[in-house]
Amino acid sequence: MVNLCSDNVSGALPQVVEALAAAASGPAMPYGADPWTERLEARLSEVFEREVAVLPVASGTAANVLSLAGLTPPWGAVYCHLDGHVNVDECGAFEFFSGGAKLIDLPGSEGRISLSALDRAVVLAGEHDVHVAQPAAVSITNVTEVGTLYTPAQVSEVAEVCRRHGLSLHMDGARFANAVAALGCSPAEVTWKAGVEVLSLGGTKGGCLAAEAVVLFDPAKKREMEFRRKKAGQLFSKMRFLSAQLVGWLEDGLWLKAATHANAMAARLGVGLDGLDGARLLGPVEANMAFVDLAEPLRDGLRARGHAFYPAAPAGPDAVRLVASFETTEADVETFLADARALAEG
Amino acid sequence: MVNLCSDNVSGALPQVVEALAAAASGPAMPYGADPWTERLEARLSEVFEREVAVLPVASGTAANVLSLAGLTPPWGAVYCHLDGHVNVDECGAFEFFSGGAKLIDLPGSEGRISLSALDRAVVLAGEHDVHVAQPAAVSITNVTEVGTLYTPAQVSEVAEVCRRHGLSLHMDGARFANAVAALGCSPAEVTWKAGVEVLSLGGTKGGCLAAEAVVLFDPAKKREMEFRRKKAGQLFSKMRFLSAQLVGWLEDGLWLKAATHANAMAARLGVGLDGLDGARLLGPVEANMAFVDLAEPLRDGLRARGHAFYPAAPAGPDAVRLVASFETTEADVETFLADARALAEG
Amino acid sequence: MVNLCSDNVSGALPQVVEALAAAASGPAMPYGADPWTERLEARLSEVFEREVAVLPVASGTAANVLSLAGLTPPWGAVYCHLDGHVNVDECGAFEFFSGGAKLIDLPGSEGRISLSALDRAVVLAGEHDVHVAQPAAVSITNVTEVGTLYTPAQVSEVAEVCRRHGLSLHMDGARFANAVAALGCSPAEVTWKAGVEVLSLGGTKGGCLAAEAVVLFDPAKKREMEFRRKKAGQLFSKMRFLSAQLVGWLEDGLWLKAATHANAMAARLGVGLDGLDGARLLGPVEANMAFVDLAEPLRDGLRARGHAFYPAAPAGPDAVRLVASFETTEADVETFLADARALAEG
Amino acid sequence: MVNLCSDNVSGALPQVVEALAAAASGPAMPYGADPWTERLEARLSEVFEREVAVLPVASGTAANVLSLAGLTPPWGAVYCHLDGHVNVDECGAFEFFSGGAKLIDLPGSEGRISLSALDRAVVLAGEHDVHVAQPAAVSITNVTEVGTLYTPAQVSEVAEVCRRHGLSLHMDGARFANAVAALGCSPAEVTWKAGVEVLSLGGTKGGCLAAEAVVLFDPAKKREMEFRRKKAGQLFSKMRFLSAQLVGWLEDGLWLKAATHANAMAARLGVGLDGLDGARLLGPVEANMAFVDLAEPLRDGLRARGHAFYPAAPAGPDAVRLVASFETTEADVETFLADARALAEG
Repeated sequence: MVNLCSDNVSGALPQVVEALAAAASGPAMPYGADPWTERLEARLSEVFEREVAVLPVASGTAANVLSLAGLTPPWGAVYCHLDGHVNVDECGAFEFFSGGAKLIDLPGSEGRISLSALDRAVVLAGEHDVHVAQPAAVSITNVTEVGTLYTPAQVSEVAEVCRRHGLSLHMDGARFANAVAALGCSPAEVTWKAGVEVLSLGGTKGGCLAAEAVVLFDPAKKREMEFRRKKAGQLFSKMRFLSAQLVGWLEDGLWLKAATHANAMAARLGVGLDGLDGARLLGPVEANMAFVDLAEPLRDGLRARGHAFYPAAPAGPDAVRLVASFETTEADVETFLADARALAEG
Repeated sequence: MVNLCSDNVSGALPQVVEALAAAASGPAMPYGADPWTERLEARLSEVFEREVAVLPVASGTAANVLSLAGLTPPWGAVYCHLDGHVNVDECGAFEFFSGGAKLIDLPGSEGRISLSALDRAVVLAGEHDVHVAQPAAVSITNVTEVGTLYTPAQVSEVAEVCRRHGLSLHMDGARFANAVAALGCSPAEVTWKAGVEVLSLGGTKGGCLAAEAVVLFDPAKKREMEFRRKKAGQLFSKMRFLSAQLVGWLEDGLWLKAATHANAMAARLGVGLDGLDGARLLGPVEANMAFVDLAEPLRDGLRARGHAFYPAAPAGPDAVRLVASFETTEADVETFLADARALAEG
Repeated sequence: MVNLCSDNVSGALPQVVEALAAAASGPAMPYGADPWTERLEARLSEVFEREVAVLPVASGTAANVLSLAGLTPPWGAVYCHLDGHVNVDECGAFEFFSGGAKLIDLPGSEGRISLSALDRAVVLAGEHDVHVAQPAAVSITNVTEVGTLYTPAQVSEVAEVCRRHGLSLHMDGARFANAVAALGCSPAEVTWKAGVEVLSLGGTKGGCLAAEAVVLFDPAKKREMEFRRKKAGQLFSKMRFLSAQLVGWLEDGLWLKAATHANAMAARLGVGLDGLDGARLLGPVEANMAFVDLAEPLRDGLRARGHAFYPAAPAGPDAVRLVASFETTEADVETFLADARALAEG
Repeated sequence: MVNLCSDNVSGALPQVVEALAAAASGPAMPYGADPWTERLEARLSEVFEREVAVLPVASGTAANVLSLAGLTPPWGAVYCHLDGHVNVDECGAFEFFSGGAKLIDLPGSEGRISLSALDRAVVLAGEHDVHVAQPAAVSITNVTEVGTLYTPAQVSEVAEVCRRHGLSLHMDGARFANAVAALGCSPAEVTWKAGVEVLSLGGTKGGCLAAEAVVLFDPAKKREMEFRRKKAGQLFSKMRFLSAQLVGWLEDGLWLKAATHANAMAARLGVGLDGLDGARLLGPVEANMAFVDLAEPLRDGLRARGHAFYPAAPAGPDAVRLVASFETTEADVETFLADARALAEG
């Protein structure tokens, strides 16, 4: 009975809940004028080794579309991978929050935007002048939708195309902790040092209850973003409760420890399944997601035993996605694998 | 050192925090397909004595503007009091989420929309045909911005004007608990039985961390609202954490007990100040807000002793607003009043 | 059978139609890259005695809302008179095109915004920080909705308030020709020299078929406005046909001659009616609109004889608005007055 | 010196200009309450052999995006060909006017949407529920962007997919006259009889100055569309001048005669070039556009002699697009071909 549908089926890290409870009594000024929010900004400035501006919001969709709306005029175009969450799973929120800007989806292997496709698209747009949405920004996802990573060098390559064309660069980091934990680099190296201007930093999937943050590597852009957040209904009166979650999550490297664990569990699932009769790992497990071809009897059998996971249709008719979280235990993994082995050998 | 700026400077009710903590471990399906969200809808159907559809969101602005966007086409007009939160404190969120509909602000004494002004405005709009935003809905606030109440009979009077003109009726219930506690009526009587179609039910000010709910008295409208919520970035993956707050808050009448307490504390503040030298209560304390004229020395003296409260400029140059919450203790009130007396007599 | 409902019930000036016909054959590059559009910009630079950027559009609503959308962010506020066309007769187009900015309507006698009300509103907004739409611009109308004028000095007074608060100033000039003709000043004096940054220059009411122009006194803002126009569906492929109308209209001072005639006809109507039994002119006729109290029998009698005009409800139950255009002849005026006299004496 | 860049480089048909001039004097009620607009609706009801509702607008972008905004909620998806004008040449106007709906571009040979790609995309969207923009409508272009046609049978095939999935069907008919003239069918057969619900009927490219019409085959939808048009700044006060153009254009089959001529000129260009040294027709000329591979010396030579045409990059590095209009004469064609022959033989 292991639920591997997504890392958002998990609860919350006990330390995060404790941090929340500890923030729950006594007065504090609203709308972010509280000590927790101040601490969060200071803490993330340390984490990223530079002054950053931070705006906590409560959903990943909000973090993404507010970030991007700040990087494009209504007549602009933002480029993303065709599998990007902002493209396929946010119900047009980008188009709405940007005032009708265009999201141009691009192909690319292993979840990463093809740089040549990006370059071509931007050049093409430039030739049509006022009739065409003007290239404004690129959004990449790290960990990508297919579980792969952007290394700092790969981010820099995207940033180089951006620089050449005068585009801004945004990173959707719903699983940023998993990416950093897997890459073994510093948070700075894979973001602003590589050319990222704005990061959607995801806390929810990593162990918070509902807390994400827009991280602006250019703090001067904070003021405008504050208005965008307010107008979006994402300025919370008891802001301390968003900030306290993130502060607790960042404390003592908890965020990276939890992500390291989740990554390890996913790797074990991938390795453990690969080669069983009817199972084939579809690529190396780079972070906390394993994509695996499971033959129908194996899929059905695992589900019949109460395990849960989603199909990964774009990867093939038999492909499934197994996502581990901080809450996935070694025992969970063993149970799942034991059942898989039993079914495969059965 | 008592903070009476707003009820949103409070923390959270311990029972709500406990409910949240109890929901924090183990898997649950995301986006509302969890037991807490199901329980919340059932619980609110009991509270309102009829089947309702419920969409938890994380801010009052979101609750209001999603509710209203569902009641007006982009070419519609929504009427509200000129002091209404949606009019003056949401930075144009209504205009944005409604696709550019018009919010028409109307005068009215004691925070309630003037029915004759409403009627005139609607009739006037009708004469201009396609050039004018078409009357679509009315939004009233209960408790109003100036601390007064709409009784069920007064809501019915607004609803009667709405019915006559074919308008929908929304209630901004950021302090709905305080209203119900003060009115001594049932939640049903002051909402759908009186003609309200959609309620923004506020949990945050009443003791939750960040939880509001759009309550649809016509459950058939839920599907459309789900899309609006998603597109607004207000569909939370770990929805259980919003629902669990509200479930805990509604448990055993906690929401009304907490509101009753807050109301009582505000009343005590009002009565205790009225008649002191330099202090005059500006109207009966109907819910959890007292509006008081405080002479400058008294204001300054109280602030010098660490007390906090906001001016209430529209009520006069010396007017201040004192808001009590579930967290305001009798000792707080006594401390504040003792300091006021000392200053007044000093 | 004289139609005085509005100046938009008129046809078009023969010279404008001729200019259009003369532009109708042979190829020209589309979207404004044609000689007529170039000539229009040069011509208006002469008219306004400085380099201006000009964007022809096809409706007054488009001219106004594109102008204003360029002067406010989505979280901004634009102030206008409560009778302003953009406020009451554009069905929320401003709210839509601005991405949900707020239009704050202000009182003011004789159709002009009260400067003290404006100042108060801006100061008030400043105190609420991020919760409140941020003061961004002021829009005034010249000729106003009630037929009065803003003199250059009065425009300067509004501009002074704008300067003090960092606001932009827009003029809705749907009847700008009538204003300039009546004021006897230069177009420059009542616009940029007095502090106006953007003008909606109306050609339609003055004798064009459907042609208005956004006139930017800061030509550097043209590029952004071009994108706004395109995205609004107001970039016309055969732009020459908009530009040619305006070029023809501006030729040899035709626009001012036509306006002078219209103004004179309105004055004659006003003077001729005033003092008849049952008729009273409600104020001096400053441009091409006369507001007159007509007793019911007189109104009915005139309509029974085929004359057409609208009520002017805000000015009183018996008030009507009589609008003259370039097409209103002296004979029209005499016929109308003769019928009025006959009825009054009857 | 022949300009074949587009059919929008042409002027206007003399009969259309005459119709306009004939409408130019005397009063008429504004905003469409005039005899020309009434006549237009009656005339188009005859043309389409059923009662239709007609809303004249002034640009093709406006016609398209208002039509489509009426067919999708803000959380909907509209499917179009990836070369579609609404996708690549309207600067995100669809995204803006629809309140942030998604435009999903699909591949397809010869400018027509691949039915299997359409089917797949709709099915895929259905599996993601609230996270994904909901399939709402399909927009096809006839004549397509690459000069091909949709026959009535081919339209019916698209409509069949729409019916299966509950989608509406819109036709962008910027060159509808050319399509009907080429197909030899009735206007009804290729629109509502084949399943089209809304048509953007283009007059501008066919010989009007600036006149398009949204044609609603379900007249009950007119009221809502009137508000959309107003709010878009596309409700013209002197509407007669839009309607008169279209009435003149439709008179005595002028629209089809003009289109037949344009089609013939394009065919002659295509045939005349095909096979010259350095020239190759890229497909049959189905309407008024010929796509031709021209070797660089030939292209340069023709341009050096003053001829104008655009590259057609998607069709190959040497491809150009030659567009004929009502104004393209046989002499123009002969001049162009003679120059081409001279250069090819040179």
